[in-house]
Amino acid sequence: MVDILHKVGVEGSSINDVYAALTTLDGLSGWWTDDTTGDPTVGGVLQFRFEPGGIDMKVLDLQPARRVVWQVVDGPDEWAGTEIVFDLKQDGDDATVLFKHQGWQEPVEFMHHCSTKWGVFLLSLKSLIETGKGAPAPRDIKIDSWN
Amino acid sequence: MVDILHKVGVEGSSINDVYAALTTLDGLSGWWTDDTTGDPTVGGVLQFRFEPGGIDMKVLDLQPARRVVWQVVDGPDEWAGTEIVFDLKQDGDDATVLFKHQGWQEPVEFMHHCSTKWGVFLLSLKSLIETGKGAPAPRDIKIDSWN
Repeated sequence: MVDILHKVGVEGSSINDVYAALTTLDGLSGWWTDDTTGDPTVGGVLQFRFEPGGIDMKVLDLQPARRVVWQVVDGPDEWAGTEIVFDLKQDGDDATVLFKHQGWQEPVEFMHHCSTKWGVFLLSLKSLIETGKGAPAPRDIKIDSWN
Repeated sequence: MVDILHKVGVEGSSINDVYAALTTLDGLSGWWTDDTTGDPTVGGVLQFRFEPGGIDMKVLDLQPARRVVWQVVDGPDEWAGTEIVFDLKQDGDDATVLFKHQGWQEPVEFMHHCSTKWGVFLLSLKSLIETGKGAPAPRDIKIDSWN
């Protein structure tokens, strides 16, 4: 089992703002993909749609201003059985996000792609909160021929 | 042992161009850090310097247009014993880089930071080759309070 890890710090921000961007349809559609629907409460399922396909996440755990956990319930085969964890903490004036996409079976090429792509989307989250403007799909930065 | 993985595709490019950017002082200083010195041949040691500190890498393996391997010989404590691997392949018109920073002892917070930061630098490498202009330190994108 292998994991993708990332960290971004959101300058001059509160973890409450980050938590809102991770737990509301409006927030999520501002940094990950425009096409975000579903139920963002615990036990609900969120539908994230992209040009190449879609991902459904079940909301497993919500600890306000502290932690958000999603379980992948539909999406690319390689994502089956994986979980996404956002751990939040306040570092002075900055809100820090520690991100993990955990439980990959093998470090396949698609995992390399997803790691870089998650970094791009987390910088979009940072930008959304710092400037009011993120770069969600389909306006995200393309990193390779897979998008 | 845990690894950082990334992938970028350099559009309309040859893996020879990517290989040159990974194996010459001029190339390396165009995407990772302005302050790059040392011997880029096998067995040589490269010195990469940044505002917060520096990293020395021994060049372990060079396979033209295919693979570059560095061993960390000096740098942050958490990097001791780790290796950096760049695997290159041609995907039609694109040159693909599969990156690995392998052999971390523990998935510490600094590893999360370095993962996101490597993604930023690999996008700088992509940009350098595609446009002639990278964003090496100190002009790199800051991702958190650690830089």
